[in-house]
Amino acid sequence: MKVRGKNYRAVWMEGRDVVVINQPLLPHKFALIRLKNHRQTANAITTMIIRGAGTIGATAGYGMAQAYLEGVDLDKAYQTLLHTRPTAADLKHALDRVRANAKTPAEAVAVAEEIADEYVERAEKVARAGLPLIKNGCRVLTHCNAGWLALVDWGSAPAPIYLAHRKGRKVFVWVDETRPRNQGAHYTSWEFMQEGIPHKVIADNAGGHYMQHGEVDLCIVGADRIAANGDAANKIGTYTKAVLAKEHGIPFYVAAPSSTIDLKCKTGADIPIEERDEDEVHYVGRERITPKGARAGNPAFDVTPAKYITGIITERGIIKPNQLKKVFSA
Amino acid sequence: MKVRGKNYRAVWMEGRDVVVINQPLLPHKFALIRLKNHRQTANAITTMIIRGAGTIGATAGYGMAQAYLEGVDLDKAYQTLLHTRPTAADLKHALDRVRANAKTPAEAVAVAEEIADEYVERAEKVARAGLPLIKNGCRVLTHCNAGWLALVDWGSAPAPIYLAHRKGRKVFVWVDETRPRNQGAHYTSWEFMQEGIPHKVIADNAGGHYMQHGEVDLCIVGADRIAANGDAANKIGTYTKAVLAKEHGIPFYVAAPSSTIDLKCKTGADIPIEERDEDEVHYVGRERITPKGARAGNPAFDVTPAKYITGIITERGIIKPNQLKKVFSA
Repeated sequence: MKVRGKNYRAVWMEGRDVVVINQPLLPHKFALIRLKNHRQTANAITTMIIRGAGTIGATAGYGMAQAYLEGVDLDKAYQTLLHTRPTAADLKHALDRVRANAKTPAEAVAVAEEIADEYVERAEKVARAGLPLIKNGCRVLTHCNAGWLALVDWGSAPAPIYLAHRKGRKVFVWVDETRPRNQGAHYTSWEFMQEGIPHKVIADNAGGHYMQHGEVDLCIVGADRIAANGDAANKIGTYTKAVLAKEHGIPFYVAAPSSTIDLKCKTGADIPIEERDEDEVHYVGRERITPKGARAGNPAFDVTPAKYITGIITERGIIKPNQLKKVFSA
Repeated sequence: MKVRGKNYRAVWMEGRDVVVINQPLLPHKFALIRLKNHRQTANAITTMIIRGAGTIGATAGYGMAQAYLEGVDLDKAYQTLLHTRPTAADLKHALDRVRANAKTPAEAVAVAEEIADEYVERAEKVARAGLPLIKNGCRVLTHCNAGWLALVDWGSAPAPIYLAHRKGRKVFVWVDETRPRNQGAHYTSWEFMQEGIPHKVIADNAGGHYMQHGEVDLCIVGADRIAANGDAANKIGTYTKAVLAKEHGIPFYVAAPSSTIDLKCKTGADIPIEERDEDEVHYVGRERITPKGARAGNPAFDVTPAKYITGIITERGIIKPNQLKKVFSA
């Protein structure tokens, strides 16, 4: 998508380097980082220089291709890249695909490029599948960032919104700031400003109030991993918004490319929930908000049970959660 | 309550000065401010140097007493103090009470002292009324700060927790950070640390996840204003927690001294919701979290309808919301 009028993806390969947008600098500064080898690439995933299911997948694929180019032990490199983020299904898919289909470094690079391109193609299909939901005048609430920064290009949750906006439909988005890491405030708002999508950033506390007052027509969120029964793991706070949406009779959609669907995972109970560093709660940037010595809880994700999900917007159309297994195992 | 082993209230009078704890400096620095006249006192309310229903009420009472001592136009002073915060019922109560019962400056000071003392007595009664809810091993979730900083002394929502802890019961509290102003992270956590109450600060997004996993036994929140039908206005995000509690079958209590109850206000729909400065969302301290030029929505309060409230913990005991009118108009 456009940044200052020029087209970018969130990650790409140039020679032996993986190039990524330095996402923690956003929304205040736009800069790129060159990752010189698979270890630097793994580190960029762990430290969340890049984030989001798709961008993690594509970056991992490129990282594996780097390992081929470096001529290092591929099993070790695979393990290094695999253990960067435990909840991301896309990461393992990408690593397995490169290993299964590439014997030479050139083949590894080609497979990694294929993986990245497929994310973009699938995201465009998600945009088209979700388009009918975005009626003229629609007010959408979204959580976290499942935009193009998180999915190489185009995004998942905002993809139908981008497409509707380009087709001239009037659309407005409530953007949850998404504590503790503020991905909504940092990234989703920045993406929307670049594309000219009218929106307001709100505290995660405010969505319920706006729903109560009839100011939300629709929720669309992304997912990090969807189980076979339709339970969806996504950024902490997603479950809260799903419960609120149900209470107010507001449709709640999860937009996700099929790579996010993990049919081997039977239910949400099988998805491990990462407990992240307490300091993410204690600090906002340099600003400490809790007393010294206070403790914090910091689950990174939550699981929204299928019963709260109206539909899953995929590249194969909008699927009812209970139809997911049937559609995607076919 | 204790600060570094010494007893304090959130506000008191010394001669012609109103002395308050400088709450925005917490939790990192403990300092007092001397307010020399009713205008400075009004300003301290507007700029939230002090906050919370009771502390606002007591401070307003002292501010009105200052106006008597200054010999200024009492109608003008009344208006100045009244327009500092539109949602606080306690503020008007206190101003009216000083004006109705004091002819001389000495009388005004005495009435203001009476008001402050009554807050403390009522808070102790709230503590005793709520005590049976806090079973040994109880895990409570609370939102915002309805502690002693917000209610002169002792507090409302945490009052039963303090009492249970002093009686040797094991209790643990999930403390919502409470964006956008982070009163939970700043004040509730600081108060709990001073009293030795085990707790963890969490992002407002995390409570739903902990409820889903059976880690919350009880919710207790405060209120800024309660309507005759039991609808309760409190810090933004309270409504969200009430909906989540209902969904999980978790009891949801509002703790509030009777001064918060406004029987003239028929339902929550009659309570005006203050829309505060967008910068509260854009910034956390000095840290800007949104892109320059982004817009934000910032409702300061929300209204939790009576049907989500298990009971209202008052100095007259725990009252069902639909019994409120009967009990308090008697």
